[in-house]
Amino acid sequence: MANTIPAAVGMPVEEVDTPCLVVDLDAFERNVEKLGRYMKEHGLRHRAHAKTHKSSDIAMIQMERGGACGVCCQKVSEAEALVSAGIRDVLVSNQVVAPRKIERLAALATRARVLVCVDDIGNVDDLSAAAVKYGVTLECLVEIDVGAGRCGVAPGEPAVAIARRIADRPGLKFAGLQAYQGKAQHVREHGERRTLIQQAIDDTKRTVDLLKADGLSCDIVAGAGTGSFEMEGASGVYNELQCGSYVFMDADYQRVRDEGDKPISAFENSLFILTSVMSKAKKEVAICDAGLKAQSVDSGMPVVFGRSDVEYLKASDEHGVIADPGNVLRLNDRLRLIPGHCDPTVNVYDWLVGVRNGRVEALWPVTARGACL
Amino acid sequence: MANTIPAAVGMPVEEVDTPCLVVDLDAFERNVEKLGRYMKEHGLRHRAHAKTHKSSDIAMIQMERGGACGVCCQKVSEAEALVSAGIRDVLVSNQVVAPRKIERLAALATRARVLVCVDDIGNVDDLSAAAVKYGVTLECLVEIDVGAGRCGVAPGEPAVAIARRIADRPGLKFAGLQAYQGKAQHVREHGERRTLIQQAIDDTKRTVDLLKADGLSCDIVAGAGTGSFEMEGASGVYNELQCGSYVFMDADYQRVRDEGDKPISAFENSLFILTSVMSKAKKEVAICDAGLKAQSVDSGMPVVFGRSDVEYLKASDEHGVIADPGNVLRLNDRLRLIPGHCDPTVNVYDWLVGVRNGRVEALWPVTARGACL
Repeated sequence: MANTIPAAVGMPVEEVDTPCLVVDLDAFERNVEKLGRYMKEHGLRHRAHAKTHKSSDIAMIQMERGGACGVCCQKVSEAEALVSAGIRDVLVSNQVVAPRKIERLAALATRARVLVCVDDIGNVDDLSAAAVKYGVTLECLVEIDVGAGRCGVAPGEPAVAIARRIADRPGLKFAGLQAYQGKAQHVREHGERRTLIQQAIDDTKRTVDLLKADGLSCDIVAGAGTGSFEMEGASGVYNELQCGSYVFMDADYQRVRDEGDKPISAFENSLFILTSVMSKAKKEVAICDAGLKAQSVDSGMPVVFGRSDVEYLKASDEHGVIADPGNVLRLNDRLRLIPGHCDPTVNVYDWLVGVRNGRVEALWPVTARGACL
Repeated sequence: MANTIPAAVGMPVEEVDTPCLVVDLDAFERNVEKLGRYMKEHGLRHRAHAKTHKSSDIAMIQMERGGACGVCCQKVSEAEALVSAGIRDVLVSNQVVAPRKIERLAALATRARVLVCVDDIGNVDDLSAAAVKYGVTLECLVEIDVGAGRCGVAPGEPAVAIARRIADRPGLKFAGLQAYQGKAQHVREHGERRTLIQQAIDDTKRTVDLLKADGLSCDIVAGAGTGSFEMEGASGVYNELQCGSYVFMDADYQRVRDEGDKPISAFENSLFILTSVMSKAKKEVAICDAGLKAQSVDSGMPVVFGRSDVEYLKASDEHGVIADPGNVLRLNDRLRLIPGHCDPTVNVYDWLVGVRNGRVEALWPVTARGACL
């Protein structure tokens, strides 16, 4: 990691090495506090999704300043990294089915509250055996597929069968439902997003009611993301929301609109790729030092922040091609790029450089960088 | 990095944790030796592009078994990581223009032969001042744009002006030309690729001749990649080729064809993302554990290796959706994925797991992972 440190605390922003990830601390804190207020006002829990930032520092700020009850992550290795860094309440909002991973998850529960999602009845028995072996309780959420088309059993009876099995097995606690409509989060148009989420709410409510009729109560009904949380929040069905991207936002989430064509919940872009011009051999083009290895372009090219005179056109491994029709850019000029997609972009960096008033105020390691196991 | 270690030497491949990057050592060695033979038979130097693998272990194998004269990389921090790991001949095949990076490049030249590309006349003076400060010689290649549309001055006179300045400045040595046609490498059709490369060869020859007329001889005429090297190799103009992807290949390079619709130079896929099925709640779909954070999808989705019955359809952050029309996949089943694009895929991993005869034989760190500075 020595070769990836771009800054030091106290350094003027002009001296930060590029390309690197910069967090505008003012905008970041406003995002954290805004969501914290919403949750408090609506009597909801926020379990912050750490898959976005993979940073224990940010997770702690979300809990301490934003009132989050804990974090989610997607991988056992992420959970391990976050627990090692002091986080004590972690939901792996994903299936854990490989024998070695189950063993690690149970071992981790000796040190923290650990929750996990389940969508397979055989997996329940495996989790139970590991929990018994380590003398721990693993809290299990049954994941239902409410339209995302990824993990999760169908809502209704299939979920009840798994919940019953969890409740019957030693070392496990049936804790509720995971019902995340991931596919709806980035749907641009508010009405269309609304329709998809209403279906998810209806499916979830039906499943909660069926479980209740079977004597299984859901302490946690979890889901929702930055693109839809006000809908699940108002449903009276969900009680624990898992927004993650709201801390940073990105170019793709900026294209998702609320009613009246406003940005979602007025969250601000706080995450930027700081890049420099490193070739200006052509009048109408500049080449910057942030290419495919400095970001993920799965959701499109980054957007140059605060500039309408230049445009990021395309990325190759180590280069970005910037249209510069007015020939205004010079060697070593700096640009801030709003990443197309924040989560996989953070995953290529080892450091987050927090800046305020033109100075570096924080240098946060990406605690769970590359923790994909 | 502790949370990213997927294997140990001696382990059966079945026990390797997923997702991770696996290198088929037999195929990898055949690729290294095949290119080495080509270079030797044609009296050419191979400067292996380490941007592909970022691994000092692989760089050493390319030099020791493949006869490579040294390596290229794209970033000063990559060069630092490779020199720290024992590589002593490194070309940064890119512009280095930021003051701190220039300083680091000159400091590095106290420990290794360091070459760098230049496309700006003011940059020549900055490099010279730093070289003098550290008492070193920086060997400079003038980069010409032979069609890629990225860095590099126009071929011909503009290159001569920069070469002259390099030759006149203390601490620098004019070493030749960098003339890489990056845009042609992935052009599918052989004839079209041929036309683009012939233009690059003509531009380069013209510039070499102009330099010669001005008393400036090119020790090095460098360029070429996996998609085109036999064309530059046969030109009589280029003498140092920079193939990188040939060690691994990827799904996109498999779509690039030689004459007679054959794969390029018969290189083999040696790099795979090993992934496991972690949800099978639906009959015709399986969810695997390799998503956007386990690869770069800039050149399309990965291809499932050796299977025509299943297909990788799409990626979200931590999930891959696999079409399984025959409902043949089960939880914890493993698949090998050929990455869409090898270079930025390697960049998200900390380890390369070398396998042979069903066992882990090597665990190589990605020495310059995330070294983007």
